[in-house]
Amino acid sequence: MTQNETRVTAGMIVIGDEILSGRTKDVNIGAVADFCTDLGIDLTEVRVVSDELDHIIEAVNALRARYTYVFTTGGIGPTHDDITADAVAAAFGVALPINAQARAMLEARWKQTGTEVNEARLRMARIPEGADLIVNSVSAAPGFRIGNVHVMAGVPVIMRAMLEALAPTLKGSKKVSSITIKCAVGEGTLGGPLAELQEKFPDVKMGSYPQMSRDEVMTELVLRSSDEARLAEAAEQVRAMVIAAHEKAGVSLPQE
Amino acid sequence: MTQNETRVTAGMIVIGDEILSGRTKDVNIGAVADFCTDLGIDLTEVRVVSDELDHIIEAVNALRARYTYVFTTGGIGPTHDDITADAVAAAFGVALPINAQARAMLEARWKQTGTEVNEARLRMARIPEGADLIVNSVSAAPGFRIGNVHVMAGVPVIMRAMLEALAPTLKGSKKVSSITIKCAVGEGTLGGPLAELQEKFPDVKMGSYPQMSRDEVMTELVLRSSDEARLAEAAEQVRAMVIAAHEKAGVSLPQE
Repeated sequence: MTQNETRVTAGMIVIGDEILSGRTKDVNIGAVADFCTDLGIDLTEVRVVSDELDHIIEAVNALRARYTYVFTTGGIGPTHDDITADAVAAAFGVALPINAQARAMLEARWKQTGTEVNEARLRMARIPEGADLIVNSVSAAPGFRIGNVHVMAGVPVIMRAMLEALAPTLKGSKKVSSITIKCAVGEGTLGGPLAELQEKFPDVKMGSYPQMSRDEVMTELVLRSSDEARLAEAAEQVRAMVIAAHEKAGVSLPQE
Repeated sequence: MTQNETRVTAGMIVIGDEILSGRTKDVNIGAVADFCTDLGIDLTEVRVVSDELDHIIEAVNALRARYTYVFTTGGIGPTHDDITADAVAAAFGVALPINAQARAMLEARWKQTGTEVNEARLRMARIPEGADLIVNSVSAAPGFRIGNVHVMAGVPVIMRAMLEALAPTLKGSKKVSSITIKCAVGEGTLGGPLAELQEKFPDVKMGSYPQMSRDEVMTELVLRSSDEARLAEAAEQVRAMVIAAHEKAGVSLPQE
């Protein structure tokens, strides 16, 4: 797709040794990807980094300079290995004081649940100066937004609640629509004519994805564009190419 | 963990618009993470990048300079959006000719399956000059290794077969062992004393992971070290701390 200057973009940073060791399997990348696609935001890069201050700072500074929005997940809990707030404050060169509003939110919840206030828990009220809070309806400890960087929890159910809280504050560009065309022939059969059609439609991004199953060769072609008319035109020509390829191969088109 | 100079490290690059759009949910990060942990390789960073030549080249060059090994997944099929080989060749400044051995592997398979040889399929035989092939027992199209960069397929079943083929060629450092301690109290209760123990054992990395369920507050503490004796010593002291915290909170330790 020719990069339209007006596209809204995003980068994501997944923070946590547990993802890199394999102990925890990430599901937040997929959730943020779906969220961005729904809002018409192009998620363009994701980095998974370890719980090391320098690594997080480097990733935050690289991605916030490059994309409209940055989303981070993980590292905002009460323990010593939760250092995302420290890293983001350092990246922006601001202090990290206890935030009165965050503290009030947490203390209200702790009062309800009879939870002791201690130094470790109060770490969760440390918010970079100048940041806005992101409400956490699940466990009260807030995320925050500073500049274009949105800092969220790593626990998936909390992360998704924070995304929902964020949605009204984000502005996507024109939504990208997609059309999927299923094929019962291999990618190699379609690759040549598909490349020609891609050249003809630079504003419609064409992807080809092999589907592996025991006995069948299947391919899904996915066409994506923010221009509905061009997308429909491209899809018509791709479908004609696909039909011809199936006829030549002597196989039937798969059921849609 | 104090970074031991002799640790073997790895970076991973996941290549594909389908991951960034949310259409496909990545499972290769977790598989590569498990693989590295088993071999005593510290996976230190992952980047997910789009099917754009410049993005892939940048990621390859950044990570190959920084880590012992780099693993890439995705973008080595027969269609126009499969540009990983082009990007890696460009990153290393080498040509990308049809490789005779790769072509022979593919043609042998195509002969068996009665598959037509065409220009699109022959894209899969393009291998950067100076690279070694990585055998693909599933669908024949090989991956390749050039320098410290290992280029694999994105289809998970093929990617895992390639990892298995690679394993004997990789050299891990001393394996990191881990001990998990389950707790029935929240992270905030453990955070203070855990931070003190982390200071005492800089060579044992201590992670704290909240487990959210409907009615229970659970925390898993994970201790990791390549020094078994220090790991055991740290675990003993963390267990004593955990027992004291449960007694103070008046809750029983969870069943292991």
